[in-house]
Amino acid sequence: MKIRPVFFESGKLKIIDQRRLPARLVVLECKRLKQVYDYIKTLAVRGAPAIGVFAAYGFYISVRDIKDRDKQRFFRKLHEISNYIESSRPTAVNLSWALKQMLKSAEDNRDKDLEYIKSVLLKQAKQIHKEDELMCKNIGIYGQRLVSDGDTILTHCNAGSLATGGEGTALSIVYYAKKNGKKIKVFADETRPLLQGARLTVWELINNGIDTTLICDNMAAFLMQQGRIDKIIVGADRIAANGDTANKIGTYNLAVLAKAHMVPFYVAAPSSTFDFSILNGEAIPIEFRNEDEVRMFAGKRTAPKNIKTYNPAFDVTPAHLINAIITEKGVFAKPYNKSLDKLRPLKNPKKIAILRPQVEES
Amino acid sequence: MKIRPVFFESGKLKIIDQRRLPARLVVLECKRLKQVYDYIKTLAVRGAPAIGVFAAYGFYISVRDIKDRDKQRFFRKLHEISNYIESSRPTAVNLSWALKQMLKSAEDNRDKDLEYIKSVLLKQAKQIHKEDELMCKNIGIYGQRLVSDGDTILTHCNAGSLATGGEGTALSIVYYAKKNGKKIKVFADETRPLLQGARLTVWELINNGIDTTLICDNMAAFLMQQGRIDKIIVGADRIAANGDTANKIGTYNLAVLAKAHMVPFYVAAPSSTFDFSILNGEAIPIEFRNEDEVRMFAGKRTAPKNIKTYNPAFDVTPAHLINAIITEKGVFAKPYNKSLDKLRPLKNPKKIAILRPQVEES
Repeated sequence: MKIRPVFFESGKLKIIDQRRLPARLVVLECKRLKQVYDYIKTLAVRGAPAIGVFAAYGFYISVRDIKDRDKQRFFRKLHEISNYIESSRPTAVNLSWALKQMLKSAEDNRDKDLEYIKSVLLKQAKQIHKEDELMCKNIGIYGQRLVSDGDTILTHCNAGSLATGGEGTALSIVYYAKKNGKKIKVFADETRPLLQGARLTVWELINNGIDTTLICDNMAAFLMQQGRIDKIIVGADRIAANGDTANKIGTYNLAVLAKAHMVPFYVAAPSSTFDFSILNGEAIPIEFRNEDEVRMFAGKRTAPKNIKTYNPAFDVTPAHLINAIITEKGVFAKPYNKSLDKLRPLKNPKKIAILRPQVEES
Repeated sequence: MKIRPVFFESGKLKIIDQRRLPARLVVLECKRLKQVYDYIKTLAVRGAPAIGVFAAYGFYISVRDIKDRDKQRFFRKLHEISNYIESSRPTAVNLSWALKQMLKSAEDNRDKDLEYIKSVLLKQAKQIHKEDELMCKNIGIYGQRLVSDGDTILTHCNAGSLATGGEGTALSIVYYAKKNGKKIKVFADETRPLLQGARLTVWELINNGIDTTLICDNMAAFLMQQGRIDKIIVGADRIAANGDTANKIGTYNLAVLAKAHMVPFYVAAPSSTFDFSILNGEAIPIEFRNEDEVRMFAGKRTAPKNIKTYNPAFDVTPAHLINAIITEKGVFAKPYNKSLDKLRPLKNPKKIAILRPQVEES
């Protein structure tokens, strides 16, 4: 089964509502700018690359609706739309990356008429989507070389088809290892508070015929103590210039455990996840979410309602705990300050044609 | 508010049904042997010391009901009852410890008439309860010396009033630190899968006026990374002769993190938790529970129903990760093989009067 969390067909932007999985497979149409913001904010669409793809289409459908024919106001509106969508989630850099691509496409065609600019934006959104699909494939192909036949892999949150425009990042590696005839088992962290592992990762893994076992986040250490985990592979929401990686809360926990148990720890992410404007992880903004996510479990209150909670959506894993970063452009090893140099955007971005990443230096 | 998870009054054995907390404070009467088993098995009563206290009373009420006047059959029945109750949960050693105390009291009075033996059993159960209360107090008094004014303490699962016949083990330290005028903050792990932290620990801490913040288990590492945790204190379900400690799943995770972040990691437990018949943690039996505990919460399915899960109720923290073990007889430090010697049961247990532990060598 091909899982497409975001798709655009017959002029309509549609998503799988990931808030409803695995109980229900519900497809929603996204018609308005406000919905673009809300669907990202409430995690109907989630996963850094998928957010990027959705934001690009969401930007397009919002611009498509602009009736104003005045070009100056039109472009001002474009920037407003971009800023609004970008404000939905602060940590995943792919969101702002995709929006910058969209704005650049429009600006590059400023002298054209508005209908033409709109058509360019649709083309650009489709291009971002297509590149994302290709990116997933290449991450899978590069990453599966690090995986041995018989490996048991632990993953956290969802870095699969549901998080991208293709077959995923961390999970693409699992899928390509399987395609290459390797027998792989996966343990999936349930990933509190929002249970992306329990709801999404195990759902897509078993749909793809992977031998999968669900655990609570606090059980990973016990498995490693028993030598039952060969590799850990996770996704990323933003990677600083030195390799420090922001990903779903609990990732740093696994990285510390991996080191203590000598289990290789890999990050899989497209090059659009790198933010070279940020020197290290300390500068990555961490999103804090509603305290009720911790007080509740699957819509049911489980703790006293007056209890304080702490709810960071992400944590930052320092680069020294990461054995390799797997991208669509190859596998990068420590020291990242040096090895990542070839991903660094060129000084003159005009020279970049369709290659990713096209991260702006800011 | 004084919280008593188990109490015996007017000939009736009652418990707080901890499956219903914090939504409802329900008191149940336990009338039959089958209920004794079920209430332990289903965690209506939980926490190693509280299970011991409840098992002692449960043994008594089950024996009280025996109508048979034949002494040989009566004693055979006593052993059957003990074995049945003991089979409810395999890891917590306090359960078998308490049952051994009860059997010994009966055996010591084998020449007496059956009504007298029954009265001895009630007295013994009350004694175990009373000693447990005193034990909690002494753990609190010894333990609070390790806590500084202004400390932020992280705890896991529930090692409080609800887990004991008194004020708890790990949490007793918090309560006595407060009584000694120290300002203490607590972060409580929610403790998947059964959320004892979210449901029980934070409930009793805020009822006792402690500044408490609830987190998901996978957030502890991020807090330690920021230097926001000064000490970790947890309870124990069984401690081997070398100090290896079985406690709620996720405890080992914290111990590894504590070492990586140089945060002192303490275990608080009564001396009845030590099992000197077990040389190290590898020999501690680990209870695996129903897979649905991981797939579901509070009757709500959160993962695909056909997904495999892995659900150990406990893990074992090796002694080298434990900075000190706090008991009612004092604080023990590494190397535990040596320091724990004074807790080791005497060769001639007759010489032990009311002192604990009275663990049998097997």
